[in-house]
Amino acid sequence: MSVSEKLDSFFKPSSIAIIGASQNLDSISGRPMKYLRMHGYKGEVYPINPKYQEIGGYKCYGSLKDTPVVPELVMIIIRAELVITFLKECVTRGCKNIIIVSSGFAENSPEGKLMQAEIQELARENGLLICGPNSQGMANLKEGVTATFSAAMEMENLSVGPLGFASQSGAFGYSTFCLGQDEKIGFTYIVATGNEAGVGLLDFMEFMLRDPDVRMVAGYAEGIRDGNQFKQVAELSLQQSKPVMLMKVGRSEVGKRAAMSHTAALAGNDRIFDGICRQYGVLRADNIYDIFDASKLFFQFKKLPDGKRVAIVSTSGGAGVMMVDKCVELGLEVPEFPDTTRENLARVVPSLGTTQNPVDVSAQIISMPDAFKKAMRIILAQDCVDVLAILVTMAVGLRAEELAMDIAEVAATAEKPILVSWSVSRALAGEAFDVLDRAGIPTYKTPVQAANALKTVVTYSMFRKNRLERSQSTLHPSFQANAQRKASALKFIRENKDSLTEYECKQLLSLYGISVTREGVAESAREASEKAAEIGFPVALKISSPKIMHKSDVGGIRIGIAGAAEAEASYLEVVENVRRHYPGDDLNGVLVQEMISGGYEVILGAVNDPQFGPVVMFGLGGIYVEIYNDVSYRAAPISRQDALEMIGEVKGSAILRGARGKKKADIAALADTIAAFSEMIVELQDVFKEIDINPLLVLPEGEGVKVVDALVIARDL
Amino acid sequence: MSVSEKLDSFFKPSSIAIIGASQNLDSISGRPMKYLRMHGYKGEVYPINPKYQEIGGYKCYGSLKDTPVVPELVMIIIRAELVITFLKECVTRGCKNIIIVSSGFAENSPEGKLMQAEIQELARENGLLICGPNSQGMANLKEGVTATFSAAMEMENLSVGPLGFASQSGAFGYSTFCLGQDEKIGFTYIVATGNEAGVGLLDFMEFMLRDPDVRMVAGYAEGIRDGNQFKQVAELSLQQSKPVMLMKVGRSEVGKRAAMSHTAALAGNDRIFDGICRQYGVLRADNIYDIFDASKLFFQFKKLPDGKRVAIVSTSGGAGVMMVDKCVELGLEVPEFPDTTRENLARVVPSLGTTQNPVDVSAQIISMPDAFKKAMRIILAQDCVDVLAILVTMAVGLRAEELAMDIAEVAATAEKPILVSWSVSRALAGEAFDVLDRAGIPTYKTPVQAANALKTVVTYSMFRKNRLERSQSTLHPSFQANAQRKASALKFIRENKDSLTEYECKQLLSLYGISVTREGVAESAREASEKAAEIGFPVALKISSPKIMHKSDVGGIRIGIAGAAEAEASYLEVVENVRRHYPGDDLNGVLVQEMISGGYEVILGAVNDPQFGPVVMFGLGGIYVEIYNDVSYRAAPISRQDALEMIGEVKGSAILRGARGKKKADIAALADTIAAFSEMIVELQDVFKEIDINPLLVLPEGEGVKVVDALVIARDL
Repeated sequence: MSVSEKLDSFFKPSSIAIIGASQNLDSISGRPMKYLRMHGYKGEVYPINPKYQEIGGYKCYGSLKDTPVVPELVMIIIRAELVITFLKECVTRGCKNIIIVSSGFAENSPEGKLMQAEIQELARENGLLICGPNSQGMANLKEGVTATFSAAMEMENLSVGPLGFASQSGAFGYSTFCLGQDEKIGFTYIVATGNEAGVGLLDFMEFMLRDPDVRMVAGYAEGIRDGNQFKQVAELSLQQSKPVMLMKVGRSEVGKRAAMSHTAALAGNDRIFDGICRQYGVLRADNIYDIFDASKLFFQFKKLPDGKRVAIVSTSGGAGVMMVDKCVELGLEVPEFPDTTRENLARVVPSLGTTQNPVDVSAQIISMPDAFKKAMRIILAQDCVDVLAILVTMAVGLRAEELAMDIAEVAATAEKPILVSWSVSRALAGEAFDVLDRAGIPTYKTPVQAANALKTVVTYSMFRKNRLERSQSTLHPSFQANAQRKASALKFIRENKDSLTEYECKQLLSLYGISVTREGVAESAREASEKAAEIGFPVALKISSPKIMHKSDVGGIRIGIAGAAEAEASYLEVVENVRRHYPGDDLNGVLVQEMISGGYEVILGAVNDPQFGPVVMFGLGGIYVEIYNDVSYRAAPISRQDALEMIGEVKGSAILRGARGKKKADIAALADTIAAFSEMIVELQDVFKEIDINPLLVLPEGEGVKVVDALVIARDL
Repeated sequence: MSVSEKLDSFFKPSSIAIIGASQNLDSISGRPMKYLRMHGYKGEVYPINPKYQEIGGYKCYGSLKDTPVVPELVMIIIRAELVITFLKECVTRGCKNIIIVSSGFAENSPEGKLMQAEIQELARENGLLICGPNSQGMANLKEGVTATFSAAMEMENLSVGPLGFASQSGAFGYSTFCLGQDEKIGFTYIVATGNEAGVGLLDFMEFMLRDPDVRMVAGYAEGIRDGNQFKQVAELSLQQSKPVMLMKVGRSEVGKRAAMSHTAALAGNDRIFDGICRQYGVLRADNIYDIFDASKLFFQFKKLPDGKRVAIVSTSGGAGVMMVDKCVELGLEVPEFPDTTRENLARVVPSLGTTQNPVDVSAQIISMPDAFKKAMRIILAQDCVDVLAILVTMAVGLRAEELAMDIAEVAATAEKPILVSWSVSRALAGEAFDVLDRAGIPTYKTPVQAANALKTVVTYSMFRKNRLERSQSTLHPSFQANAQRKASALKFIRENKDSLTEYECKQLLSLYGISVTREGVAESAREASEKAAEIGFPVALKISSPKIMHKSDVGGIRIGIAGAAEAEASYLEVVENVRRHYPGDDLNGVLVQEMISGGYEVILGAVNDPQFGPVVMFGLGGIYVEIYNDVSYRAAPISRQDALEMIGEVKGSAILRGARGKKKADIAALADTIAAFSEMIVELQDVFKEIDINPLLVLPEGEGVKVVDALVIARDL
């Protein structure tokens, strides 16, 4: 049974023991009893403390071994130094599910780290399922299991619903829960993962994705420990049709530093993480409310939008324009309506309104029976519309209620999703909001908030659609490591591991079918001119030495060599220049290289990420890569189609597509090369640290690509 | 008296007549009476309608001439066709301040447009102050003047305070007001400007800036009609130390189209508008709540932050990291604390906390008397800190209240501003929130919201500081049009207005002291080689013809010409190539031009904006300008220092500063050139449409700049 399957018993225990229970029901070790009673937990509760007979109406036991049955879940809330002793009692008693609330472990001190290691060892040996230490516990709201001390549980009448939430920060996680409750977001589960000595964030998310009551899983993450498990969770999200949304902190360098000191979690490279989220369809939240705002659409839309084309109907032109601006900024489309549609709308839209998208039906429409419903139906019937956004401003009172009923009536039979932005105080239009709530129509306070939530849902919907439409082979590149090739590549790297020369790096790339410049190493002036003649003039000469990084700084490069005599002279010149800078150094000769004119410079890179393994990077050449940070990342291997998406994600790729009347570049060959490169870095993942192909020249359509320079940095083996 | 001075009487009338008043107090023409009574208006109210004796407790009059005194403000709420008749009655009666609520004018039809023009004419002739038509009216909350039909006034106990708000959308404006009331934001005034036949948005903003009760002015704008008035409003905002924040829609092309159809307002080029807002220190809002969130800091900070260095103290590590991420993303700084500070903090921060910024005091601190106050004081005393952000997560109940009191106590004597993000339901920590509210400490729900608001205020504060520190001469470039130069420039353009050749454009630039390539036009092969020798080889030859835009496409360019013979041959070649494409065309000869190597290509442009007049644009060369839209705009003229700011705003300028070990470019010369160019376009504003200097070559430090190519498009004169 996987960890996530075992979690069923953890989240739905028939009995709970609390080791270190206190009679002060407002203290950390007293609150669980208070909350379990308050939220109607139906199972047995066993406070464990030799000092008391009874706590909060529950019989108190002197020791874990005294409870009538073996508790299905145990909470440990005692001083850190005592935790291991009591954990051993759990083992003796046969308890399997344990929340260690106590703090003072790896997050705190070297001694704490040692104790945590011991806990991990105990768990492994005895098959314990441990949440924590330093965990604020969990709640299963449907069954009133509030195995937590968080004061968030002081809230009464908790909203129960389809959102599962796991957090690597206890305080912040329960804060989020609290704010979600204020927004009437229904939760199924919340869990604070603490130091994750046993069960980790991804295990909890996996469990929630499998739970039939959960329809969306959100997480607060400071670091992802296991890239492979992350991919599995994403895959499960896709299978289960349940979106996963993560609020991941530690994006900035200072933030990362702070996250490191806060927990042991690795913050990682955020750009890489972002690329992998796109690759696997995991959504990201910037602010807490992004989760709530998106969840409303996920829970209330009867179906997800088929595309990103938004029709907007507003009772105020201003709101319409604001929504359009935001939609366009976010990459949603606001299509123009055809003339026939506008003519149909003109029959129902009042004279002060407009009939083009965004349609301004004006406040007048409120007093015209059926006109608003007709307008909505005309718009929903358009082929060019995927989703309808209705923007209401100052409608209040009875008229607002009627308007809400009209919306609800149309939405009830509509085949496309509808959302509402209603910018008014609830105090003035409470009944209208109630009507929309009852009808399950998602409602926002401003057009900007509505557009942001819509963007998230459309991103998810389009990712899913794209995935489901794609063949298995492009989803999971049918990549088989080629044992022979791999062996020779590894041998090649190991033999030259100190550092490979440019020539060697390119030979390695050639092994994987990646096109490189024609070239050869010459060890004499004569040989240089012979090789140049073979390759064809003009050629470039470059000193070949693994030790010289900046060849041009030492006069180690000559370009545009047009003939044999020039080649010989240049050879001597280059060697002499370099000898002056590196006297006595072993030179590997001089690289004679074909010169290619035309084409666009791009960069391909690979990093061996500690969490996600081999990751491929693509960007346009030049220092713009650094200044605009306009690059995309994907976990390898990727298919040609993935590579095309990766290229498309880079803004500067517009150049490759022939911006401003320039020649189109061979994007197909580029995509094939990225895919081949991604396979290469999977085969070589045990030996490489970084690979840079810079520049890779993308030639005009049909002419392919060529690696002009490359650098492979091997791992310390 | 300026319009904005006259508005005092408009907003503070001692009597109000309502023409077209209805006895149905829930109808548009009945509500003003209801609201005036409800919100305690102390002046006289005169409903005008021959049908009734009394409306809502006010005596009703048959005609405007019957009222006991001349009403200081008149609201007209009748069918559009009747408006002019009643407006004439206003004139007869001597009324000066009029709100025309009626719609059906320029926003609606050509006939409406004519009527509106007539209204404008009447107003001009008789010195009327007209708000509208198509205006939802205004409210002066301090004096209960609710001269509006907006149902927003149904809210009871309106929050009165220092925010003035003017809106070009009635419905959306009052919606915003409503949502602000929910957030307890105190308003002084709100006005919906309608079609602005008389008083415009900027007039209202000017009035509010002058009003002593107002401390911040916000606006919803679809278009700015008068760029000069915009600059005056910004200048007034600076003088009065009152920030102006605008939510300007119509940023996207579709949005602009919709804004056009919605009102007659011009949406303009949003990038230009954005540059001018930066130039003049006007803040922009993306969402309604941005206004409220920023206003809390403006109203509650005792002083604005001196800089952008943020110290963060949190009770949860997670919240701290989130805040850091957002601050860094927004360009705020989270400075590292020196060791001595950390040692001092270590004495008061609990063992589970951390002492580096962001400081995690952990939830433990709540139970340690005085520790939190000590920690805050240590941090506030740091020189490297401009503002303190306190992040609280799950503190609730009595402990939360104590924590809030500690914060209030420290804030009371602190010399630096303090803000709080408290992520918990108000239901659990109501008393704590009340303590903070009473102490005037701005409070947000999440770290992200706190960081966004802080960014706005820091931007404003730094703009002010920068302005106040700058000398008058750099603030208002002492630019005097040079009459003689201007005359010759204008003559030059008029004589060649069809289109100027590259050579002529550069001559024009030279007039303004802008450095251009050495060059001359040759009309024979012989002359070409002579000029080349004069200039010095290598040279470039370019066909000189105002009609040929893409010279290289027709073989009209030869570069790298190294000697006399080559120059002669190239001359003949170029002329022949061009003759083939343009047989019989008048050629102006061939331009012989020095060739410059090295340096960075940048672009300088000028547009003659319909609202803001001559505007200068700066960006890096290459097609990256288009793809990344990495350009900055300023209204001309600008000083050298303005130009330096403009350069700094362009991300790609990192290259000019010597990124990646490249040579530093002559940024000083570039700034001087931009300033000179800005003066030129002011002098030429009546005759130019667009000017493009592309490329302008910025040479290494100390070597200046050179215009390599330029294009001047004259206006249709």
